[in-house]
Amino acid sequence: MASSTGPGDASIPTLKDLTIENITDNVHLINSQCADPRLKYIMERLVTHLHDFARETRLSFEEWMAGIQFLTAVGQTCTDVRQEFILLSDIVGLSLLVDSIDHPKPPSSTEGTVLGPFHTHDAATLTPGSSISGDPNGDPLLVLCSVKTTSGQPLADVKVDVWETDSHGKYDVQYADRGDKADGRAIIRSDAHGVFWFNAIVPVPYPIPSDGPVGQLIAKLGRHCWRPSHMHFMFEKEGFDNLVTALYIRGSDYETSDAVFGVKDSLIVALDTVTPQLAAQYNVEAGSKLLRYDFVLVTDEETQQLRHDEAVKAMRALGREHMKIIKGLPVPDVD
Amino acid sequence: MASSTGPGDASIPTLKDLTIENITDNVHLINSQCADPRLKYIMERLVTHLHDFARETRLSFEEWMAGIQFLTAVGQTCTDVRQEFILLSDIVGLSLLVDSIDHPKPPSSTEGTVLGPFHTHDAATLTPGSSISGDPNGDPLLVLCSVKTTSGQPLADVKVDVWETDSHGKYDVQYADRGDKADGRAIIRSDAHGVFWFNAIVPVPYPIPSDGPVGQLIAKLGRHCWRPSHMHFMFEKEGFDNLVTALYIRGSDYETSDAVFGVKDSLIVALDTVTPQLAAQYNVEAGSKLLRYDFVLVTDEETQQLRHDEAVKAMRALGREHMKIIKGLPVPDVD
Repeated sequence: MASSTGPGDASIPTLKDLTIENITDNVHLINSQCADPRLKYIMERLVTHLHDFARETRLSFEEWMAGIQFLTAVGQTCTDVRQEFILLSDIVGLSLLVDSIDHPKPPSSTEGTVLGPFHTHDAATLTPGSSISGDPNGDPLLVLCSVKTTSGQPLADVKVDVWETDSHGKYDVQYADRGDKADGRAIIRSDAHGVFWFNAIVPVPYPIPSDGPVGQLIAKLGRHCWRPSHMHFMFEKEGFDNLVTALYIRGSDYETSDAVFGVKDSLIVALDTVTPQLAAQYNVEAGSKLLRYDFVLVTDEETQQLRHDEAVKAMRALGREHMKIIKGLPVPDVD
Repeated sequence: MASSTGPGDASIPTLKDLTIENITDNVHLINSQCADPRLKYIMERLVTHLHDFARETRLSFEEWMAGIQFLTAVGQTCTDVRQEFILLSDIVGLSLLVDSIDHPKPPSSTEGTVLGPFHTHDAATLTPGSSISGDPNGDPLLVLCSVKTTSGQPLADVKVDVWETDSHGKYDVQYADRGDKADGRAIIRSDAHGVFWFNAIVPVPYPIPSDGPVGQLIAKLGRHCWRPSHMHFMFEKEGFDNLVTALYIRGSDYETSDAVFGVKDSLIVALDTVTPQLAAQYNVEAGSKLLRYDFVLVTDEETQQLRHDEAVKAMRALGREHMKIIKGLPVPDVD
């Protein structure tokens, strides 16, 4: 590869007469001017896979243009309260994969799952026993949970973000007139015993938004667009790895065919019934539905060690032992 | 892999407990419900490469989110007259690659190159000798070309779409007040001798739009965003493969470092000077600049045969001899 005296940098390669065979190496060469080694590695893998994809499919101009138009439509469907690209990532299994890579979990801890596109940052912080749902038509549910360390120590003052749909299977942000009135979502803090509890409604299955380009793709693939009944939880506590997860209600339709690949056996919970004793203690009706779960968080330290170990293993499997691992992320060893 | 009786289809696989290792095969299984075998193959390769990309980079949640936000911004930068996703495809070499795959050229024909994001469908059809540029500040250029078959027969009545920037390096669509007044672009038809000619201005180097997310990426990669001086040409003629190409002016800055990888030696042309004889014949000033080129189109039949042969070769190299090739495109052999 000859080098040319290009404007601004004498070391950039000559980019001419690029062919199906040599274009990938040439794009790598021009991108090798990047000062950030991590970005350089990400671009190198991205360009390689993108080009291999085109070569292996013999991608036609019409198909490429359909892809351009599809991605444009996905971008233009995004609003302040709708993230169609996250939805796209969800339905091809990328979101679940990235969560699994970034948040490795030791066997004793609670597994993570997809964030989904409906988390917001405007939920009110509620006191224990409040109701997160203003929907009068939902089936009342008492949620009674705890949060601990992997060694069983209760964790106090954990910030717990919870969100669920209404009884029609819609999140508040899916209503045009929502404005700044958050509903079906709240922030709760665990008490001194690591316990947090709130009133909600029994989750129902719902379709992911199917009126946009992602819905059209799902239909073309012959797939359904439903998610089984679930409630989202996100945990934040200084010194611990953020946990993004959800609980799935046992026996729900679509339990084994979630459109976004989020279900894990360890996160499926059978609903219980509120006993008279619990009813008195928590001021709810006896006989109503009860969701209990003990969440287990992993320390930052343990997460970082796991992330590092798994990155080393992955690079070894790829024959890339020469990569440095910095904060769990492979980076080329540049001198 | 166990199958479950999912809603609507008894054959969909059980999607539960998906891990870094098994998620790719499971996404393939759920997508195998797709009735269109070509789309199924495209999705299979796309999901494989996307997941491998995430596994090989150990993509972090923050990086994934940066990617989501980047793609969203790219989509939202697109307007009726700006296609930021095509620009993104251009700067990672995908556009050139897809053109090379989809429009294979025998050695005797004119090579193709990137379409770019600035072609429009509203150029006026001009008579021979008209000027395509309304810019009074450009350096006048007589463009005198012909179009033939690979066996040298002149091709009459070919629709030739041409477009170039003004003397400031801007396409008409880059001006907010352009409205429906196309400038720097035209449709010309070749005459009975396969000849077409028009007046234009000498192309100048220009930066690709750098005020959007793609410009930000280019900057992060330490690359410049310039294209060497060139004029775009697109040819359409019944029975012949559409030719999307461009002519590059020899000696232009950035000739060997085009930001979108479009330059090919066979498309670089040294400008000539209009002789007194030509000046009289074409009613332009003697001594002004002259661009001459003989374009050669390939028949649909020959293109289809080449496309088929190269797809067969590519599938053999991949060990995918079992694929069917339909209209040059690999399709799984479904019974």
